[in-house]
Amino acid sequence: MIPEEVLRVAEDIREMRVRGASRIARAAVEALLLAAEKYQGSDPGDFALYMRRVAEVLVSTRPTAVTLPNAVNYVVSALRGARGSVEELRGLVVERCRSFISYIDSALDRIAEIGSRVLSSGDVVLTHCNSLAAIKVIARAHERKGLSRVYATETRPRFQGLTTYRMLSQAGVEVVLIPDSAVRYVMREVDKVVVGADAIAANGAVVNKIGTSLIALAARERGVDFYVAAETYKFSPYTLIGELVEIEEREASEVVPADLLAKHPLLSVRNPAFDVTAPEYVTGIITELGVFPPAAAALVLREMYRSEPGAEAPALVRGVEEE
Amino acid sequence: MIPEEVLRVAEDIREMRVRGASRIARAAVEALLLAAEKYQGSDPGDFALYMRRVAEVLVSTRPTAVTLPNAVNYVVSALRGARGSVEELRGLVVERCRSFISYIDSALDRIAEIGSRVLSSGDVVLTHCNSLAAIKVIARAHERKGLSRVYATETRPRFQGLTTYRMLSQAGVEVVLIPDSAVRYVMREVDKVVVGADAIAANGAVVNKIGTSLIALAARERGVDFYVAAETYKFSPYTLIGELVEIEEREASEVVPADLLAKHPLLSVRNPAFDVTAPEYVTGIITELGVFPPAAAALVLREMYRSEPGAEAPALVRGVEEE
Amino acid sequence: MIPEEVLRVAEDIREMRVRGASRIARAAVEALLLAAEKYQGSDPGDFALYMRRVAEVLVSTRPTAVTLPNAVNYVVSALRGARGSVEELRGLVVERCRSFISYIDSALDRIAEIGSRVLSSGDVVLTHCNSLAAIKVIARAHERKGLSRVYATETRPRFQGLTTYRMLSQAGVEVVLIPDSAVRYVMREVDKVVVGADAIAANGAVVNKIGTSLIALAARERGVDFYVAAETYKFSPYTLIGELVEIEEREASEVVPADLLAKHPLLSVRNPAFDVTAPEYVTGIITELGVFPPAAAALVLREMYRSEPGAEAPALVRGVEEE
Amino acid sequence: MIPEEVLRVAEDIREMRVRGASRIARAAVEALLLAAEKYQGSDPGDFALYMRRVAEVLVSTRPTAVTLPNAVNYVVSALRGARGSVEELRGLVVERCRSFISYIDSALDRIAEIGSRVLSSGDVVLTHCNSLAAIKVIARAHERKGLSRVYATETRPRFQGLTTYRMLSQAGVEVVLIPDSAVRYVMREVDKVVVGADAIAANGAVVNKIGTSLIALAARERGVDFYVAAETYKFSPYTLIGELVEIEEREASEVVPADLLAKHPLLSVRNPAFDVTAPEYVTGIITELGVFPPAAAALVLREMYRSEPGAEAPALVRGVEEE
Amino acid sequence: MIPEEVLRVAEDIREMRVRGASRIARAAVEALLLAAEKYQGSDPGDFALYMRRVAEVLVSTRPTAVTLPNAVNYVVSALRGARGSVEELRGLVVERCRSFISYIDSALDRIAEIGSRVLSSGDVVLTHCNSLAAIKVIARAHERKGLSRVYATETRPRFQGLTTYRMLSQAGVEVVLIPDSAVRYVMREVDKVVVGADAIAANGAVVNKIGTSLIALAARERGVDFYVAAETYKFSPYTLIGELVEIEEREASEVVPADLLAKHPLLSVRNPAFDVTAPEYVTGIITELGVFPPAAAALVLREMYRSEPGAEAPALVRGVEEE
Amino acid sequence: MIPEEVLRVAEDIREMRVRGASRIARAAVEALLLAAEKYQGSDPGDFALYMRRVAEVLVSTRPTAVTLPNAVNYVVSALRGARGSVEELRGLVVERCRSFISYIDSALDRIAEIGSRVLSSGDVVLTHCNSLAAIKVIARAHERKGLSRVYATETRPRFQGLTTYRMLSQAGVEVVLIPDSAVRYVMREVDKVVVGADAIAANGAVVNKIGTSLIALAARERGVDFYVAAETYKFSPYTLIGELVEIEEREASEVVPADLLAKHPLLSVRNPAFDVTAPEYVTGIITELGVFPPAAAALVLREMYRSEPGAEAPALVRGVEEE
Repeated sequence: MIPEEVLRVAEDIREMRVRGASRIARAAVEALLLAAEKYQGSDPGDFALYMRRVAEVLVSTRPTAVTLPNAVNYVVSALRGARGSVEELRGLVVERCRSFISYIDSALDRIAEIGSRVLSSGDVVLTHCNSLAAIKVIARAHERKGLSRVYATETRPRFQGLTTYRMLSQAGVEVVLIPDSAVRYVMREVDKVVVGADAIAANGAVVNKIGTSLIALAARERGVDFYVAAETYKFSPYTLIGELVEIEEREASEVVPADLLAKHPLLSVRNPAFDVTAPEYVTGIITELGVFPPAAAALVLREMYRSEPGAEAPALVRGVEEE
Repeated sequence: MIPEEVLRVAEDIREMRVRGASRIARAAVEALLLAAEKYQGSDPGDFALYMRRVAEVLVSTRPTAVTLPNAVNYVVSALRGARGSVEELRGLVVERCRSFISYIDSALDRIAEIGSRVLSSGDVVLTHCNSLAAIKVIARAHERKGLSRVYATETRPRFQGLTTYRMLSQAGVEVVLIPDSAVRYVMREVDKVVVGADAIAANGAVVNKIGTSLIALAARERGVDFYVAAETYKFSPYTLIGELVEIEEREASEVVPADLLAKHPLLSVRNPAFDVTAPEYVTGIITELGVFPPAAAALVLREMYRSEPGAEAPALVRGVEEE
Repeated sequence: MIPEEVLRVAEDIREMRVRGASRIARAAVEALLLAAEKYQGSDPGDFALYMRRVAEVLVSTRPTAVTLPNAVNYVVSALRGARGSVEELRGLVVERCRSFISYIDSALDRIAEIGSRVLSSGDVVLTHCNSLAAIKVIARAHERKGLSRVYATETRPRFQGLTTYRMLSQAGVEVVLIPDSAVRYVMREVDKVVVGADAIAANGAVVNKIGTSLIALAARERGVDFYVAAETYKFSPYTLIGELVEIEEREASEVVPADLLAKHPLLSVRNPAFDVTAPEYVTGIITELGVFPPAAAALVLREMYRSEPGAEAPALVRGVEEE
Repeated sequence: MIPEEVLRVAEDIREMRVRGASRIARAAVEALLLAAEKYQGSDPGDFALYMRRVAEVLVSTRPTAVTLPNAVNYVVSALRGARGSVEELRGLVVERCRSFISYIDSALDRIAEIGSRVLSSGDVVLTHCNSLAAIKVIARAHERKGLSRVYATETRPRFQGLTTYRMLSQAGVEVVLIPDSAVRYVMREVDKVVVGADAIAANGAVVNKIGTSLIALAARERGVDFYVAAETYKFSPYTLIGELVEIEEREASEVVPADLLAKHPLLSVRNPAFDVTAPEYVTGIITELGVFPPAAAALVLREMYRSEPGAEAPALVRGVEEE
Repeated sequence: MIPEEVLRVAEDIREMRVRGASRIARAAVEALLLAAEKYQGSDPGDFALYMRRVAEVLVSTRPTAVTLPNAVNYVVSALRGARGSVEELRGLVVERCRSFISYIDSALDRIAEIGSRVLSSGDVVLTHCNSLAAIKVIARAHERKGLSRVYATETRPRFQGLTTYRMLSQAGVEVVLIPDSAVRYVMREVDKVVVGADAIAANGAVVNKIGTSLIALAARERGVDFYVAAETYKFSPYTLIGELVEIEEREASEVVPADLLAKHPLLSVRNPAFDVTAPEYVTGIITELGVFPPAAAALVLREMYRSEPGAEAPALVRGVEEE
Repeated sequence: MIPEEVLRVAEDIREMRVRGASRIARAAVEALLLAAEKYQGSDPGDFALYMRRVAEVLVSTRPTAVTLPNAVNYVVSALRGARGSVEELRGLVVERCRSFISYIDSALDRIAEIGSRVLSSGDVVLTHCNSLAAIKVIARAHERKGLSRVYATETRPRFQGLTTYRMLSQAGVEVVLIPDSAVRYVMREVDKVVVGADAIAANGAVVNKIGTSLIALAARERGVDFYVAAETYKFSPYTLIGELVEIEEREASEVVPADLLAKHPLLSVRNPAFDVTAPEYVTGIITELGVFPPAAAALVLREMYRSEPGAEAPALVRGVEEE
């Protein structure tokens, strides 16, 4: 009996009407909040079961997203070992949902603050795709110190570069759009690269929009600093125990228009959504807890997943252990 | 009084209806042939002047192309110091035109032959954009030994990857199309890269379709051999004396659809047509004279530009000296 | 009055009849257990002294082994500050011995579990020498997902490659034996390297069978991931305070047959048993606590040596401080 | 009413009569001690205010030094939330001053001890400028094991190499002085590099005397280990939250004699005092807490700034938070 | 009717009783000389046919050797287009044989002379396998300047290191034998590497005993110069036109003793005889014509194969063209 | 009976009153010219002997300079095999002297012309020491296109940076002087490096003022092009046959003022005048014959030393062979 509205959010995530690692996490938590509020029974055990079912439905929509289980586990782990009436349990869940949502916002703000310090007045910055965290860092730095110019990649196949252009030019930043294949061509003029992340592995490897790892190669060749802006709930606890981050491959029609595909029935297309940037190319990961070298990711993860409820970072570990 | 047909060819080159370094060279030489045949006067001095004017018009259509002056100089240098009737001079020009055109074809065939030897049975090959020389190498190797698969980039903004797909699948090669930004993602499966070139500098640097240098970076990271297939008339003699190869930047509308551009009047776009791959990333340059390491380019050039008429490579040096 | 059986174990370790970092640790702890059980006096102070003497004898057998003092210190540190009858003290020692032995087994199992996740279905894996931890990782991965093939080095001078072949083929893995000098030759086909370790230094450097560092160089050149499987009791706490890991050099007769040596009295031979792989070549260290980047080794060590008895990792620090 | 003697110390720091990161920290703490002792009022609130003003004056003398705020914050944070008479508060301050000063000495001694272990008998060592910590490491190692020779750079523009020569030759070490530009020339003979640091950033980057980063490049090229000897109070907590370490540029007259400058009024000179060595060039940072890989700096910082008073490392975090 | 003695030489080459690139070339040319002398007919056309048959037999014995066709083609190309009596043709062949044999000796001597100059007094040198050219370089340098020590690899599976030891110690050089897997372990002490070659490709890649490319990797890591000593008749003209040098794989019984193989019928072994060292790892190729950077190989080849008979280098090109 | 004036020039070279590779060559050739003119005998054999003695005296003044024997051999080789009266022989020598001197000037001008093309409008250029060829390249580029700024190193110990400042500011170039140790600090702003050379080895290695190789390392790290401007008579023909270029070490008093040296009798100083920049760091060598990649140096040398008298480059080979 999962409410319609909750199922609709699940569907939106599955069909990618909700996109971006943070937005997905937020949508899932909002759905959990809604589910908790809509529950009408009075049996505490049934409530726990119901919440767990909702959690499973949400997590299954995008099996390769990292923020999804991180967020959902954080919320439902509040019920583990908890006793009390439905009202009391609901209260626990609601509180977790609210604290997570407010954490998302404050983390982004803190990242903007910290990240703006690594940029200097007059810098030329390059960014890729459309990352909220990276854009906030760039906009805050421009507001504080004035940047010269931002190169934004067009980001094929879905062309998110235009959205980045719109967001940054609203913040008064001068933006130059380039084809993805021109990143090395402009790299000689670039002072720093700032990108976002969909997930961070325990060894500091960064999973982000396809093409990111090429930018990292080109930055390394010129000694250009390469920063990743990412909230700590994008760190994948499962990679600590050896799990690889799975890369989603999407439909051919994003690359080749459907009519052309129809004409070439034998044409095969690969369309990976993300790639993995090795830690040795990453100067620093800008999180709400500070700027870390990628090699520190494993220890950030261990610290996060041992901390108590109410600690600064969400204590996701129980959910993980339980699964 | 340059004939209409000749001016039309010049226009086709300028407007990029004729594209690709070899095709441009061939078109220009065919135009010179036509011009020589159409000439109706009887004053040898006037004929020489006329041919030189035609040459200038042709060379000026794409000031950054290297094959254009190489080809045109080769032909018109036949008139330098030559004496005789218009008929005799026309004969010299016509012979040069024919020898150049047949050289184009035989050079391509020889490159296919030599290049097919550097590929091995079962290889996975990656190519970029739409290079005739690279495609001939791949097709010949597939015919002789059987390749596993070819990754072809879509090649934004003009999408030449689809043409490459068509040409290679006609030769029976299995082709997988990928976005330009996915080259590093598939590189772990690739055995060899084969691309073409628009120009080769004296230090072995390769000017080719934008994105080529990123592929070279990704190949280097995995120890994958990176071959360039190029006729020797793509070697730029001017770089030997320090000239840089100029990179053409094209219109924004190739990157952002015109209607979107209209909506965002402040949006700035850079659209470089080519980039430069440094020689340290190039395993070998497959020419009709053999496979050379890039560092040998300067000496290939010096050898070419001292050789006598009738030598294997077109003796372009006189044209160069004359300019 | 150290019992004969205990001295025999010490002798076996010294004479290398017991080989391999884990097996040495286990043998030493079993000897301590035996020693504790055999003690027949009734003076608690004398028992403590006796146990400390046994510990010293065991540690002195292979002064360069890291697991030996780690294991022995863990056990005898139970007596530090302890009071009670001989029976009570014996109980403390026996419990520590049993917990260490069971820790060895469960750590190996946990490493196999975690390590199997970093390998993928169809992978070609290369391993060196004969490491129990590496073999367990490979065998578990093969059982779960199916590997294509394992390259095992012959591992001169002692030819442990054949033992590796036997152990892996019992697990159903297809093994190809190669000379040590052929590792770079086959590296192009390899997807991942998995080796063991004799010791891990605080900076993440890996001490392992001679030749390991060459494999790491060859892997780096092709961008092949290089994993080390090692229990945390192989981490050397002394390196944290600047001690270098000493490399044992063995007898010439392992390299050149004794009869040939006799014929060439002037022939000089160096036969180092181990080499050091620098941390920048190591993708990850697979421990029972998770997969860590090598730079995390210092902090794993600091964490281990501050933890309380009963913590997941053996609390070796007191022994270390005391020595 | 800040006492004359205290202002004089501030002036000595500002005018660089006191130089070197540790010496500056010590002088500032001694000035705080003096200030506390000289205070003659009886209002606890006024005492706290007075101490804070002294602290501000001291910190402002060299805005780019890292040890200065670290040391001063450690002392004055004792007053935060403290209650009691002036005598009691003065006691808190005095105790903090004394504990910091004794920490400086014991930290240096511990660094010498730990660092001497990473050097081997017979080593040829290269050092730069005049770092107390590096010199102590080298002298202790020579005393224990005997080094072959130390290359000391002359260290333009201020020629601190001669001071290094004097200090090391007093310890019996054979010193060879070389121009700064000859470091790569002698690197083939060098076994290890040991330098000091003015500051360590959260990502492990090392701020030290100009020229240090060139030595690191030359060491990397030959595979020579590059060690940095630095007390943990040189770690910059502000870099953890994104702050860059500012590099002081000094007067032209240090580079070009004043009379020549006068003759060339158009001559422009840049004279940066420090440069930044990227963490990938640093083998290990030798601190009083152990030898760490540079990537561990962020976590050493997090650990330091959460620890309790009385912990081994000064708990500077409160001061930091307060600012 | 090929004489028995000639067939016996062919058999010795095939069965590897004659080993080493130079020794094979010399044996083949001696066999051609013998064949020419033994011919008893009087028909010049038949003589030419006979010599070509002998040549084919010899070349077919080791299809992957490069010196074999280079030497044989040089001799038999004397008959191309030649006219005259059998005696006159025999004279041509005999002269070519003698000039090739004396060329082998003088080339080796010239390589020793030139190569001895790149070594310095007191150098520690590392060599691999058993190369006559490398040994002559080392011995000459020791005679002239005095070397400190030579590390010689044992060179599994056939243990040629012992032969190298014998040859070098006869020349008074101090030799230390090491396992193949210990080359990186001793590299820190090594000043220069000198190895031989079985073949040099047009891009400067060096085909030599398996393990050579690992030594090159270890030398690069420490900035140690890596020299290859090779006569120009080891340069492969076929690689200029794209042919790859084929690597011979030998029998499993060289790696695993036959009795063990018999016991493990499922054991699979790979035993490649050579590997390929990429040109970027080679400091210089020491030939009888001088020391060349590897990138010059293509142009040395082009120069050699255009030179006239009687020129310093054997004019092998005709044989090559003819095949 | 060598004339006083000639001996004085020899003395000036020996005592370094004449400095710089080109100036030394010119001075020596002017001395030969003077010597030829001053000769008063009438015996042709005696004249040849006399000239050879003068040549020997000149060459012996700076045994490590490369341009000195190159220039002197070029002149005196005119006498080899020559017959005729003293007047006729003198004529041969005088002509060679004049042609060499005019070659020096025209080569510099050609280098300026070619080199100016590799710089772009607005470039920031870094140069080292005081190289005439490099300065001409920079000045010509500034005149043609306008450069932004030139960083000139102070160049310890002799401070040639000030001379460079004077020469470049006369040409209207904005110059910023930096300490040698600050080259990496400013490298991020630099577009291209242009330095001179004292000698070029056959493998393309560049011998130049101490510190040059550090600049090359810093340029490589940022992907900055590194050009060397050098006349072809600085190429060392002896390196082709294995000779190493010897590095002169100068007096301690250049580094440490004499009075300080006197006070520290045990202070040891090394003061190498030059260092060697490996070819892999050099983008191109700008010569009067064109821009070559360093790997082409060996073939430029072979070409030069086979060419006939009257060829563009001085035919120095005979002198070389004769020695």
